[in-house]
Amino acid sequence: MNAIINDIEIIKAKTTKINEVDFDNLKFGQVFSDHMLECNYKNGAWEVPKVVPYHAITLDPSAKIFHYGQSVFEGMKAYKDANNEVWLFRPLENFKRLNISSKRLAIPELPEAYFMDGLKALLEVDKDWIPNKEGSSLYIRPFVFATGKGFHASPADEYKFIISTAPSGAYFAGKVKVLIEQTYSRSANGGVGYAKAGGNYAGQFYPTQLAVEKGYQQVIWTDDTNHEYIEEAGAMNIFIRINDTLITGPTSDRILDGITRKSIIDLAKSENIPVEVRKISVKEVVEAAKNGSLKEMFGAGTAAVISPIDGFGYQGTDYDLPKLDKTYAEYLKKRITDIQTNKSEDPFGWRYKV
Amino acid sequence: MNAIINDIEIIKAKTTKINEVDFDNLKFGQVFSDHMLECNYKNGAWEVPKVVPYHAITLDPSAKIFHYGQSVFEGMKAYKDANNEVWLFRPLENFKRLNISSKRLAIPELPEAYFMDGLKALLEVDKDWIPNKEGSSLYIRPFVFATGKGFHASPADEYKFIISTAPSGAYFAGKVKVLIEQTYSRSANGGVGYAKAGGNYAGQFYPTQLAVEKGYQQVIWTDDTNHEYIEEAGAMNIFIRINDTLITGPTSDRILDGITRKSIIDLAKSENIPVEVRKISVKEVVEAAKNGSLKEMFGAGTAAVISPIDGFGYQGTDYDLPKLDKTYAEYLKKRITDIQTNKSEDPFGWRYKV
Repeated sequence: MNAIINDIEIIKAKTTKINEVDFDNLKFGQVFSDHMLECNYKNGAWEVPKVVPYHAITLDPSAKIFHYGQSVFEGMKAYKDANNEVWLFRPLENFKRLNISSKRLAIPELPEAYFMDGLKALLEVDKDWIPNKEGSSLYIRPFVFATGKGFHASPADEYKFIISTAPSGAYFAGKVKVLIEQTYSRSANGGVGYAKAGGNYAGQFYPTQLAVEKGYQQVIWTDDTNHEYIEEAGAMNIFIRINDTLITGPTSDRILDGITRKSIIDLAKSENIPVEVRKISVKEVVEAAKNGSLKEMFGAGTAAVISPIDGFGYQGTDYDLPKLDKTYAEYLKKRITDIQTNKSEDPFGWRYKV
Repeated sequence: MNAIINDIEIIKAKTTKINEVDFDNLKFGQVFSDHMLECNYKNGAWEVPKVVPYHAITLDPSAKIFHYGQSVFEGMKAYKDANNEVWLFRPLENFKRLNISSKRLAIPELPEAYFMDGLKALLEVDKDWIPNKEGSSLYIRPFVFATGKGFHASPADEYKFIISTAPSGAYFAGKVKVLIEQTYSRSANGGVGYAKAGGNYAGQFYPTQLAVEKGYQQVIWTDDTNHEYIEEAGAMNIFIRINDTLITGPTSDRILDGITRKSIIDLAKSENIPVEVRKISVKEVVEAAKNGSLKEMFGAGTAAVISPIDGFGYQGTDYDLPKLDKTYAEYLKKRITDIQTNKSEDPFGWRYKV
């Protein structure tokens, strides 16, 4: 029953939960596949990971994850094409970014083989969990957190790396109206904003709740100094189309180097869509909304791929975006998902066969 | 064997670990008492807490603490006086701050009685764990974290509040040389710096490691805009003595409203030590070091109470602080610990009998 794939030991679950899952009505990240990859850091080194049955994690109350926020994660997706072949999208970028995040949080970096071979072994074992319905995919969540014990405010000496997967439908549903934030901030210069660190997300929830109470769904983050420049949209990168030009802010120590973000930039360039990577001021966006040159705004990230924004609020005024027949958002989303799901050529070499 | 204290159910441990503990050689926060307080948030409400045997926590891999950093904590201490009476120091301030932190992290706030009565019941059950040796105390760690499941980046629907205690010796040992940080930052304007949020600590570890590699023990955090103003010292508030005046920065959304900090301010005022609460520039500190008017720097926090700084580094130059016969640090630390341990009058009403 047990086996070895890519040097990874597989301990199979005795039963499967797959028959309990309604693959036609998947939500996002709420049901979990039968197995997970588990890998422990002890005595100064990562141990070889194992594929094991999905199981609860047992931790001492003094485990540092509960106290000092040492946690980083990634988001990825696996797709099945018409021939039931399984594909990932630029997985090495996720691996590299996980280690970039880990380094900033003083978490030991993972060997590439443990991540990549571990992921492939896990997907091989749970391949029946990968949906093949349009718009659905197997959401993949690699994450690392501190398990070492003690109340001293210092890095832990033990960590756990897990990859867990969840067959998922679309991330967002319905219209997205955003609020351009003028009080709260997501990240500091010299801070951890470029890392996919747990703490970056917890800090966004309360300002987002306040925005939701005002009738918005998400917050557009601005710089913490003067709230003058657009930074990110909720937990996504943001793109703004003024006339025919697509603009997104440069990455920095405050802004996540999104994989969907950079794929959109490359794709747009190759399609001769004018793209500018530069700081975008709130003032510029408001002016563009007023004079009609603001055509589109959308968020970009693994979970939603591209999430169009219908309007934004700024200093008590709401601005609606025009309803266009053809949008960059729709076009680029189709182009990316066609590449991801092996429906089109992949001139960039982004698709990765498992 | 089981009992009820202040309406809190007590489930006692079958055995005790107390005989394994060397109370003469306690480190900080490494051994844990026999019991802990445990309280769950479910279905929109906090359940009544229970005192239970210290035990491991079991969580689903999708529990939001692992992914989205929803965690806050407090640090407190219990002291035993010569008559074996047990004392806390301004515990209601910790309770209030825990809720202030929770609110910012979108964690449901706790009822005061669950915190205070729960804490008293726990200390009653584990009173033998409170050291009575000079310099030692029972370190108390209340903390709240997200246990609710799912990969959606939104606040959890379930949480756990725990109070765990650890008989502890001194937090720091030896000389403390600090580096005035000019690259990394602790917190953003409009961020979560004022909250005792886990993520604030994880973000400090890597810059602190870099400082340690350069021969320092801690980082002095400066504002994230220009690194012009002194903000905090490691995980403590900071005080700077220039000539006879004690200066500390004002609290803000970036700076923790430390209980030791405000106790020092009140105590110094009552002793006619000139105190100024105002922004302190790095330039002012460096100038004062050069002209000899810089007399002392020290960190202030629950764990270390007061931690004197011996010198600092700034832009490649090291500055030593003078060795004084009588320091504010030593004087104020003795005054505070005498109040905490019932060795002196308590004109402020800070001491709290359990």
